[in-house]
Amino acid sequence: MSLYSETPSAALLPSGFADLLPGEAEAEARGIASVMEAFSRHGYQRVRPPLLEFETSLLGGSGESLAPQTFRLMDPNSHRMMALRPDMTTQIARIASIRLQDAPRPLRLSYSGSCIVVGTPGREADRQISQAGIELIGPDSAQADAEVIALGAKALAELGIEGVSFDLSMPALALGLIEGVIPEADREPLLHALDRKDASAVAELGGPIAGMLAVMLRAAGPADRALDLLASLDYPKDVVGYFERLAASVAAIRERSPDLRLTIDPVDFRGWRYHTGLCVTVFSTSSREELGRGGRYLAGQEPACGLTLRPQALLRAAPVSASRPRCYVPVDLDAASLSGLHKAGYATVSALSHDEDAAAQARHLRCTHVWKDGAARPL
Amino acid sequence: MSLYSETPSAALLPSGFADLLPGEAEAEARGIASVMEAFSRHGYQRVRPPLLEFETSLLGGSGESLAPQTFRLMDPNSHRMMALRPDMTTQIARIASIRLQDAPRPLRLSYSGSCIVVGTPGREADRQISQAGIELIGPDSAQADAEVIALGAKALAELGIEGVSFDLSMPALALGLIEGVIPEADREPLLHALDRKDASAVAELGGPIAGMLAVMLRAAGPADRALDLLASLDYPKDVVGYFERLAASVAAIRERSPDLRLTIDPVDFRGWRYHTGLCVTVFSTSSREELGRGGRYLAGQEPACGLTLRPQALLRAAPVSASRPRCYVPVDLDAASLSGLHKAGYATVSALSHDEDAAAQARHLRCTHVWKDGAARPL
Repeated sequence: MSLYSETPSAALLPSGFADLLPGEAEAEARGIASVMEAFSRHGYQRVRPPLLEFETSLLGGSGESLAPQTFRLMDPNSHRMMALRPDMTTQIARIASIRLQDAPRPLRLSYSGSCIVVGTPGREADRQISQAGIELIGPDSAQADAEVIALGAKALAELGIEGVSFDLSMPALALGLIEGVIPEADREPLLHALDRKDASAVAELGGPIAGMLAVMLRAAGPADRALDLLASLDYPKDVVGYFERLAASVAAIRERSPDLRLTIDPVDFRGWRYHTGLCVTVFSTSSREELGRGGRYLAGQEPACGLTLRPQALLRAAPVSASRPRCYVPVDLDAASLSGLHKAGYATVSALSHDEDAAAQARHLRCTHVWKDGAARPL
Repeated sequence: MSLYSETPSAALLPSGFADLLPGEAEAEARGIASVMEAFSRHGYQRVRPPLLEFETSLLGGSGESLAPQTFRLMDPNSHRMMALRPDMTTQIARIASIRLQDAPRPLRLSYSGSCIVVGTPGREADRQISQAGIELIGPDSAQADAEVIALGAKALAELGIEGVSFDLSMPALALGLIEGVIPEADREPLLHALDRKDASAVAELGGPIAGMLAVMLRAAGPADRALDLLASLDYPKDVVGYFERLAASVAAIRERSPDLRLTIDPVDFRGWRYHTGLCVTVFSTSSREELGRGGRYLAGQEPACGLTLRPQALLRAAPVSASRPRCYVPVDLDAASLSGLHKAGYATVSALSHDEDAAAQARHLRCTHVWKDGAARPL
């Protein structure tokens, strides 16, 4: 009986799931280790929630917005429904609120792991998503926003990823304006027009704030220019705080990361389901691929700000790092020589018998070096 | 709206699933990184199969023996059943047989990841299981068996785990004897008696091989004494090869790892579902907890030998390693000082405003040091 019997269909994986082969898998692991090390050095402590939870806890509160993307399983022990996590932030919020409720604040947590989403039939996309992220729980301040974003930028820089843009938005700013003056029934078409960046529809549907919204549409772009334009507007009392906080957060980010490429889109609402303040999407400027996203939300009762990077996207953006040289060694090579090779950065590939032609075997196994006369010799 | 709303039941995870908190999660990640690094240094290249596959590919062939422990999900895209992996070895066998069928042999692969098992109602056990392992695919030799076991031992030693026992078995030896002379209908009670180590039942049910089986029962224990006893037996021609291979594998292991504690149980069949040759269970001698298991099987048509370690068990066996010192630093500490602290091994915990009493805040955040007068000062 063999452990795996080949049938034609067996080679196929469900759409959105993939094998990472040697090289790819090593690069992914190295990428995750690198960003997690950056997070750890800055005082973010790792937690590891399970892949599955009860549906009620994983999708409770506004985790509910994740429900359509979540696979469920019946737990045969409790006869309750469990859910495969589509995202880890809900889990970190649960851990912070309950397991770590007595830990001092600000609470800095980091995490990495795989998430599973149902996906959209017919649209090819990853359905197993690696995440590596941080959450800063407790403080609600521009400095806290800035710490999270600056640390994300640092982690990307340490991976050698250049050409990164942090695109900021503050959905509550435009939403607050709209909710203040536009009757509820008329809001949906206006939001849709803003989302499409359709200036003429916004002019038509914007009523008393059409002029302000037009400026906000035009403001989308580099952060300094955007803030200048946004500063020219006359906000109602209950909304002005959102503008001030956006400006303060940008200033705090600039202080920590003067060279960071920051843009602002003041009318970006898409995909921000549970966020309450500053939102951020991280893009590669070369591929325009999304490298991560995050923002401010409430973890239980507490203010929190987080950022989740996507290691699979990072790998596509990061320079390929050289894999270690491989040295073919005799089956009975002494421990000291072996350990010397490892210390010098070699992977060793051991013979399994006394070879007649070690060099040929080394080439066959795609080694870069072979052990000869007491040293690693290039092939 | 908050991301996580507290309800009493929300704190409960399904039985067998757990949060790892700071410290635990860090230790698990470090343990996995350490064994994966040992595997990589010895030429084992990492692959990363997905968490889910189609049921037909994951549970095909003798992967079928894993079916009762496997959760299934309907794929809404293909309308086919998918299965959450209960084990990674089947996946590695698939990758070797199909994706890497043209890669040179011996093929050395490593992997780490989480597996999910259904579990047994009423019995508390982990249902999310971390695995980190190796597979050596191609050769069928005592040297290959020995490489896998010796590398497992090395990885455990590098984690600082002392008191490890490798318990070997060769199920085909006793099974071959029994199948040669005991009628099929009478085998089950005899196997059950051997499994219970019930010498008097074995004497009663063993027929012409009762004497040999009695010696095999007595032989269970340290490898050298076991081999001496087993060598005294007169095996039929079609079975003697299993004994000779067991002896050869032990000799090859001894040559690589002279100090390894090796035991043999010649009548151990339990839990070896798809194995074809040498089987091994790794135990901590202090806790008797199983740290890993592996053995020889067929990956598709190819001989293979693997070993899977269980990082959660390793952590319970490994000495607690000191976590890095934490230094509380001002919000505007210059980059050079910050990077100096990181290079010196500190995690930094940044103030989020200009503190009036940095030392008090540092203590509150459970830091070990605080930045004062240009250096990290112990608290």
